[in-house]
Amino acid sequence: MSLDSVLDRLDGDRDAALERLFDLLRIPSISTDPEYAGECGRAADWLVEDLKGMGVDASRRDTPGRPMVVGHLPGPDGAPHVLFYGHYDVQPVDPLDLWDRDPFNPALQEGPSGPVIRARGASDDKGQLMTFVEAARAWQAEGGTPCRVTFLFEGEEESGSPSLVPFLKENAEELSADIALICDTGLFDPETPAITTMLRGLLGEEVTITGPSLDLHSGMYGGIAMNPARVLAKVIAALHDEGGRVAVPGFYDGVPELPDAIRAQWAALGFDEGAFLGAVGLADPAGESGRSGLEMIWSRPTCEVNGMISGYTGAGFKTVLPSKASAKISFRLVGEQDPHAIRESFRAMVRGMVPADCEVAFDGHGASHASVMSTDHPAFEAARRALSAEWPNEAAFIGSGGSIPIAGYFRTILGMDSMLIGFGRDDDAIHSPNEKYDLDSFVRGTRSWARVLDAVAGA
Amino acid sequence: MSLDSVLDRLDGDRDAALERLFDLLRIPSISTDPEYAGECGRAADWLVEDLKGMGVDASRRDTPGRPMVVGHLPGPDGAPHVLFYGHYDVQPVDPLDLWDRDPFNPALQEGPSGPVIRARGASDDKGQLMTFVEAARAWQAEGGTPCRVTFLFEGEEESGSPSLVPFLKENAEELSADIALICDTGLFDPETPAITTMLRGLLGEEVTITGPSLDLHSGMYGGIAMNPARVLAKVIAALHDEGGRVAVPGFYDGVPELPDAIRAQWAALGFDEGAFLGAVGLADPAGESGRSGLEMIWSRPTCEVNGMISGYTGAGFKTVLPSKASAKISFRLVGEQDPHAIRESFRAMVRGMVPADCEVAFDGHGASHASVMSTDHPAFEAARRALSAEWPNEAAFIGSGGSIPIAGYFRTILGMDSMLIGFGRDDDAIHSPNEKYDLDSFVRGTRSWARVLDAVAGA
Repeated sequence: MSLDSVLDRLDGDRDAALERLFDLLRIPSISTDPEYAGECGRAADWLVEDLKGMGVDASRRDTPGRPMVVGHLPGPDGAPHVLFYGHYDVQPVDPLDLWDRDPFNPALQEGPSGPVIRARGASDDKGQLMTFVEAARAWQAEGGTPCRVTFLFEGEEESGSPSLVPFLKENAEELSADIALICDTGLFDPETPAITTMLRGLLGEEVTITGPSLDLHSGMYGGIAMNPARVLAKVIAALHDEGGRVAVPGFYDGVPELPDAIRAQWAALGFDEGAFLGAVGLADPAGESGRSGLEMIWSRPTCEVNGMISGYTGAGFKTVLPSKASAKISFRLVGEQDPHAIRESFRAMVRGMVPADCEVAFDGHGASHASVMSTDHPAFEAARRALSAEWPNEAAFIGSGGSIPIAGYFRTILGMDSMLIGFGRDDDAIHSPNEKYDLDSFVRGTRSWARVLDAVAGA
Repeated sequence: MSLDSVLDRLDGDRDAALERLFDLLRIPSISTDPEYAGECGRAADWLVEDLKGMGVDASRRDTPGRPMVVGHLPGPDGAPHVLFYGHYDVQPVDPLDLWDRDPFNPALQEGPSGPVIRARGASDDKGQLMTFVEAARAWQAEGGTPCRVTFLFEGEEESGSPSLVPFLKENAEELSADIALICDTGLFDPETPAITTMLRGLLGEEVTITGPSLDLHSGMYGGIAMNPARVLAKVIAALHDEGGRVAVPGFYDGVPELPDAIRAQWAALGFDEGAFLGAVGLADPAGESGRSGLEMIWSRPTCEVNGMISGYTGAGFKTVLPSKASAKISFRLVGEQDPHAIRESFRAMVRGMVPADCEVAFDGHGASHASVMSTDHPAFEAARRALSAEWPNEAAFIGSGGSIPIAGYFRTILGMDSMLIGFGRDDDAIHSPNEKYDLDSFVRGTRSWARVLDAVAGA
């Protein structure tokens, strides 16, 4: 029962591990679309069976939304207790015509920098989730995991996690551990692993403005009837000022300046802003003037339009004056920004811009604070050394622009810190067509978790 | 062969006339969507057969787009020659879930102000087109039409009429007449018929702004990557100034002030702005400040967003930073406004607002000048008297906010004036779900055309 034999077993079991991942990727577990609720249940059942097969006491736990999966491995007496979290649900796949293959028919394909696993969920988060499962399986085959392990797999991460908080509260005793391990983040670069210690919060708002009570002919009514698309455009245009700052009143309350030490550490990472933007066809940072690229994506708050629609959007032209216009708008939050206060301020700002003749309705989506991990816990440094042993470069503590509200809930509800360790790359196209996960991420990921379990047991 | 016997025949033939109209309404001849090209051909064939059945020398004339239908009735020696124009194509029907019944399964339903014919195209323009066909049929059954009649039915009116100008030019000799009769407009109110003598032109532009080369995760890229929806919103928000004027440079070049005489005539019509807007759930005129409601819809130019889309617009929330944002924007033109100059000025304005990091593409749709008819031709006053005899109130010369480019083409290509006479009502919901045509419009419409043919023959 040694780390080396576990790593050897992972290497020997690679093809079977890939087959298991492909089985999971074939299940279209899209959580935001009610039509796929049954598929989410299928993915949960698949995971329960897989965990049971390696000796985990696992079960499906139904919720008002998609089911949770919970499992337990006892570990040696007195060993540290870790809770591992991942999510089995995935994002929608549209626009489907931009995919080169069926998003739910995974394949190993040769990419420009080596082989990749191509499928929706390959990186976010099924592939990442399975790196831990495979590490635990290898430890089990070699005599047992060195830590006590609780597994928690969620099926609503991509749709605002409505069942998560009640579930954590109702099962707090069962789920509490010494520290949480979360695999839903990325490498700093393909050779540099990272532990994410700073996460932005997320606030989602859907705004619908209604003008006329029905779609009108723009010839007959154009000029006299208020067009809600025009109102919505004015609202969206007012959300940023000329310097790229978000113009919602009070938005920057609780936004801290970056400590000099962290600023220096990030500068040392040598982030290549031009390459980062160039990879997606852009050149100019679009955020607040005077901020570095890493600040824009890790430590500054933002406001983005995630979607908007009004009137006729099919082929050709239709001279309609639309009845409705709507937008999905989200805010990324940092420091002590209060999502509920910002929601109210945003709604008041919008109401103040809508003419008396129009109605505005809001549909609130997720609202989570930012999280900043305390890296004092000795497991952090132990895990950082374990990762450094697996990858070409030393591991780094970094920030992340994305929002993983679970880390905040683990702290507030279960009273434990989280270590966010993941192996995604920037070009994984998560949430986009042709999502992929590098085979190297998967292989080194399984080995990394084997090492981290060993290191945490010894910390 | 007298007007009275023709009117009696129309009254006796009413049920069969409705059945014929329903047959035509059952054909989903949506011209803007290539999937329905075959259905447009079916509608053209149906019309050719119907005309032949009443002795018209009719034929289908194929074009690069949807077919035209042309037919001839000789009329008495020396009688005036009229060209009648209507269109058999219809608007798309989405959003389909807002229809109370299948849009292509017409039915006679009881409405709040009497029976209505419910179907896509009932009012725009199949029902209107058939009012003339039925009048001609009745005259034929009573010995022959009192005028020489040429029929021209188009199948691309709702999609910018791309084949119309070439067709008119190639067939100018066959199609030229003393005056054109066009049935694609409305009553002033349910008791007051109208001859429309002032029509706005139309310019359509589709703008697509591309930011990143693929849809991005708004957590990973939000803040640093330019969001094209934000750019598009700024463009749309800049199209109108605070006073409701269109802010495209040079837009008002060639816009005339309304002559005092016309202004007085319109004031006398007693247009009820509150009722007009109230019928569609609005209260406040949204056009240029200081203009009357009739000016806003008849004699002032406008700019409207007909549709816009970006990012994720399905159910739930998706934290995507979209690659593209696009809008369909149209301008209604008056007086001597030059659609081509405005198109160039609009494009230059948009290009000037798009950051270097984004690309903008334009797709130009129809571009037509406004039309103002000369009412000196004696047929105008004769027709006005004929309409006044059929309806409760005297007929009026009015303006129209809609764009019927054909009237301009008839003048410039075929050298003749047009009389725009139609029987639609403001609440017909043309281009919208649950389109209808009042049975009263259809019945009095057929009788009106019987009278107008008689009046024009004697003018």
